[in-house]
Parts: sequence; C-alpha cells; structure tokens
Amino acid sequence: MSDRFFDDFRPGERFETPGTTLSESMLLDFAYRYDPQPFHLDVPAAAKSIYGGLIASGFQTLVHAYRMFISEGVFAACAMGSPAMDEVRWIKPVRPGDTLRVAGEVRESRPSRSKPDRGILRMDYQVLNQADEAVMTFSITHLLARRPTS
Amino acid sequence: MSDRFFDDFRPGERFETPGTTLSESMLLDFAYRYDPQPFHLDVPAAAKSIYGGLIASGFQTLVHAYRMFISEGVFAACAMGSPAMDEVRWIKPVRPGDTLRVAGEVRESRPSRSKPDRGILRMDYQVLNQADEAVMTFSITHLLARRPTS
Repeated sequence: MSDRFFDDFRPGERFETPGTTLSESMLLDFAYRYDPQPFHLDVPAAAKSIYGGLIASGFQTLVHAYRMFISEGVFAACAMGSPAMDEVRWIKPVRPGDTLRVAGEVRESRPSRSKPDRGILRMDYQVLNQADEAVMTFSITHLLARRPTS
Repeated sequence: MSDRFFDDFRPGERFETPGTTLSESMLLDFAYRYDPQPFHLDVPAAAKSIYGGLIASGFQTLVHAYRMFISEGVFAACAMGSPAMDEVRWIKPVRPGDTLRVAGEVRESRPSRSKPDRGILRMDYQVLNQADEAVMTFSITHLLARRPTS
C-alpha cells in the first residue's frame, strides 16, 4: 500500500488496521502527560465518577488511532500534512484492556485548485473496540502528493 | 478558578494559559510514539519536505494545548468529560523552540435537557505562538457539573 499517491484513492475505499490492546498502565501514563483529570488518572476517584471506573482520555484514543493508521503505510509515499479535522465524536468510553482497531474510509477526493502537485482527500475514521462497537469517529482532511509524471 | 461549576461560565469569558516551549527533542519523542511521518520525525527528510524543516505533529500541538489548559484548573471541580470536538484547524506549522500558549473562550452555554445535574459548554480554543500568531484553533463541547444546591 505504501506506493500510493493522491490519484490512487477512490471515494468509498476502506482501510482497516489490526487491533492493539490499551492497558491500564498506558491509560495512566497518557493521562499523566496530557490529560490529568481524575477519571483518566486516579483509579479510586474514577470509580466514584459518572464513568464508574478509569477511562482513556479521548485524546489518547485519537492519537493512538492515528498512530495505528499511519503505521499501515497508506499515506507513506504521499503525505503532505493536514489542515483540518472535523466531527470528532467520543461515543463510548474506552476502558483498561480494551482492544482498538481503526477503519478509514475515503469520503471525498479532489485535486487542489491552486497547487497542481497535490490533492485533497477527506477521510472518515472509525475507532472500533473488541465488541465491534464504534467508540470514536472523526474526519481528517489530508493533503496528498499527486503521482509524479515521468 | 478551581471551584467553578457550569453555572459560573458566561459566553465571551476568556481564559489564557502561560507559555511553554516545545524543544526539538519533545517533537521527535511525540512523533516517534504517535505520528511517525518524516516531516515530524526525520530532520534531514523534513528539511527536504514542503515545510523546509521539522514541524510538530498537529496532534502534539492539540494535546499539548489541552494539557496546558487543563492544568489551569478552570474545569477542576466540574469536568464530566466531552462528547465532541469540531472545527480543528492547523493554521501554521509549529517548529522546534516555539513557545505556545492557549486561550479558551466560552462560545455557548446551555443546561442539559435530559440530565439536570449537568450543563453543556462549548469552548473555542486558540493556540498562539511567541509572535502572537494563531497556529491552531479548535472547539470542544464540555459536559460540566452544575453547582450543587445546599
């Protein structure tokens, strides 16, 4: 998949990653660095919260999902960064031991009007847990290089 | 600020954090964990990219900003999580040595219709660099506890 360019993506095309398990230790470590709120960081306090136990920071679910997707190499040859992300929804709590995988689907694809070397790809991402429930969704606008002409 | 509840926030109210500097080492460490793309992770490759040098992952700017804001304690007494984030825009690259601060402004505030113990606060966030340029903006929908009645 790693030699894809903008021109190779089609609306409706879908890519899915393998799963990875998030341990309690990973949740606590992320919360300590980036989201130190009691229901992400403090096991007894989390038990007394509306969540009834520790849950992952929504930002951890997001960056973990993106990391898994990037590692698939779908954009390895053509990524030029991203100007926008929209419609981020945290649907279900992620708890210690949950196994997440990510599916990305091409929503829209159009060449850049101002820069002929690139195109704009809008991707819808869905983060799924071990019960196939969507725990999070988001949509990213990617800038991708066009296939070089010989 | 840490004893605020939903009832204490007013549209237009603004909170600003102090600045923190992001070193090259912090950029590389984050990219290695969460966003391993050449322009975030590989100094020579980044120099040859459209960015002309290493830039921070947009997700790093996001979680770093959120961490700074949460540490201010504005939501310490009342945070109940967040269902949504919208309108994430990466406006300017963040480079090694940049100093970022965050301003959060209340856009909208309304009590929950279904759950009388909480309200919904929409906050607009702006991440500013040392030249007072907005490098990133985003909007988060927060669930906040209402002030307990005695």
